[in-house]
Amino acid sequence: MTDPATEATPGPTLNVVLFQPQIPNNTGNIGRTCMTTRCRLHIIHPISFSMDEKARRRAGLDYWHLVDCREHPSWEAFLDREQPRRLWLYTTRASRVHWDAELRQGDYMVFGQENGGVPPWLHDWVAATHGAQARLTLPMIDDPQARSLNLATAAACAIFEGVRQMTARGAPPYPLAR
Amino acid sequence: MTDPATEATPGPTLNVVLFQPQIPNNTGNIGRTCMTTRCRLHIIHPISFSMDEKARRRAGLDYWHLVDCREHPSWEAFLDREQPRRLWLYTTRASRVHWDAELRQGDYMVFGQENGGVPPWLHDWVAATHGAQARLTLPMIDDPQARSLNLATAAACAIFEGVRQMTARGAPPYPLAR
Repeated sequence: MTDPATEATPGPTLNVVLFQPQIPNNTGNIGRTCMTTRCRLHIIHPISFSMDEKARRRAGLDYWHLVDCREHPSWEAFLDREQPRRLWLYTTRASRVHWDAELRQGDYMVFGQENGGVPPWLHDWVAATHGAQARLTLPMIDDPQARSLNLATAAACAIFEGVRQMTARGAPPYPLAR
Repeated sequence: MTDPATEATPGPTLNVVLFQPQIPNNTGNIGRTCMTTRCRLHIIHPISFSMDEKARRRAGLDYWHLVDCREHPSWEAFLDREQPRRLWLYTTRASRVHWDAELRQGDYMVFGQENGGVPPWLHDWVAATHGAQARLTLPMIDDPQARSLNLATAAACAIFEGVRQMTARGAPPYPLAR
């Protein structure tokens, strides 16, 4: 008899990591995108909003039980548990366009806060441990007046670029529509 | 002396067309993505929410004056004014994955309503006038329980796939970060 809990299951498409997110709607929307693309969502605490069932019900997140979500008390706890081998930081402060990176199944994609991204020490950590080339950006027009992309929007674009690349290499992370 | 109003300007990256959108937050978010990627947003009326200045201020859309937005009273009025030569319909009911289509600068990308997409007659119109291959989808897992992508998320993924393709063909629609 097979124990379902120990059956081998395919890993997630990608690991999407939100560093101390600030806006519940964005976290909810990113969870929804993860659900539709079989990604795992990681939320790095502390966060200033509640993720409990009551709060989710109030926010209309009736699909949250389908989201593969792990919460981590701190960045250090996240590293301890996940031991991410391949990791990318998405930031408006990088110059490398994200589609120039080779994105593979199971890669960790880190996104910072809505206001200000990740702190300088995390930029430094990524550059030191995964190389300066691990800092990626989504190309936007160069206009200081223009706002940057919404966080949930940026995360979805990053995820689908990963799915596209895996598919182009002959290994779609889930069956594509036919 | 040059008249700024008649100076030749490069056309928009893409033309993003929302058919009778229902949720103001999504329209706002898509406008923000259009702003950051130099796309033109088209809104096909009737819509059930207000787009006037007061409503925009209330919704925190302080960037809306930077959005290149055209409102059209009907689908027919949109066709009359825009005469779209190349047009794609994004729908969960298609099987062709969107990155298999060749997306070019200035293409029209049509998105339906949050609840239900576009009506059957518009599916038929697209297939009849632009071919069945003009109906595109973003690949999601096949799980009837899972919700589909948020509209603003789907539109952003479509836009950035277009920007990626233009860039890959050596003609980025705007200067990329370096």
